[in-house]
Amino acid sequence: MTDMKITLTKIGIIHSPYKTTKEAPRQGTKKPSVIEIFEEYQEGLKDIEEFSHFHIYYYLHESRGYNLMVQTPWDSEKHGLFTTRSPHRPNPIGHSIVKLIKKDKNKITVENLDAIQGTPVIDIKPYVKRTDCKPDVCCGWIEKTDLMNY
Amino acid sequence: MTDMKITLTKIGIIHSPYKTTKEAPRQGTKKPSVIEIFEEYQEGLKDIEEFSHFHIYYYLHESRGYNLMVQTPWDSEKHGLFTTRSPHRPNPIGHSIVKLIKKDKNKITVENLDAIQGTPVIDIKPYVKRTDCKPDVCCGWIEKTDLMNY
Repeated sequence: MTDMKITLTKIGIIHSPYKTTKEAPRQGTKKPSVIEIFEEYQEGLKDIEEFSHFHIYYYLHESRGYNLMVQTPWDSEKHGLFTTRSPHRPNPIGHSIVKLIKKDKNKITVENLDAIQGTPVIDIKPYVKRTDCKPDVCCGWIEKTDLMNY
Repeated sequence: MTDMKITLTKIGIIHSPYKTTKEAPRQGTKKPSVIEIFEEYQEGLKDIEEFSHFHIYYYLHESRGYNLMVQTPWDSEKHGLFTTRSPHRPNPIGHSIVKLIKKDKNKITVENLDAIQGTPVIDIKPYVKRTDCKPDVCCGWIEKTDLMNY
């Protein structure tokens, strides 16, 4: 069952002020990054500048291996990998909700992207308040940590 | 640049009341689905039941091809693909924010998952209110449609 392989294609690249995973911030940053979508996909960005926020999905190309129980920087206990945002995962897909600053043709400047320089982009989707903004949630172990107010 | 291929592995499967893409609802549903994570990954779900919501990422395995300008069911104009949630994309990755109903070992029952029966699961991440809930957003063309209140 698990040996089905899924193949994805890079549709763009992230230009980040962070050159290495050690420099990259945890969970978002105010420093702007530029998402360059390759010209062959540029038409698909039409009117994206009318959105204040969008989802971006990328491939954590420097991720190597994973553990199912994870020590995070936020507390002293280990947690199930799928309750964390660790970049080390069976499928190292990164996902950020970013704020759009400006768009110039196939380049979009955004805030709140914690990817490093050269990260491959795999998808962009609009942030839809009705489905995506959940104010009444319980965030498990995260609620007991500083990550809630980081 | 674009010919770098990224290979993903199926970590589970979705059991849905919707058997075909024609039956599947648009943008979420109250009908429960069951996410079965393969046993080799089960430990990574530890304590996920303490979260009320999580992100699930899946492979839209029945997607075939795409257009960069898309006619959605929500209005009469075409829109840039990346401002839509169309399942027909260069990389057909599905993403839903689901509500956890119950967990039994490696099976999680959820609400608000619009995937069809047999959809491969590729990742799960926790929903973190601070980073993921954006109440003050502008949703472009979507704001002029019924999708805002659907």
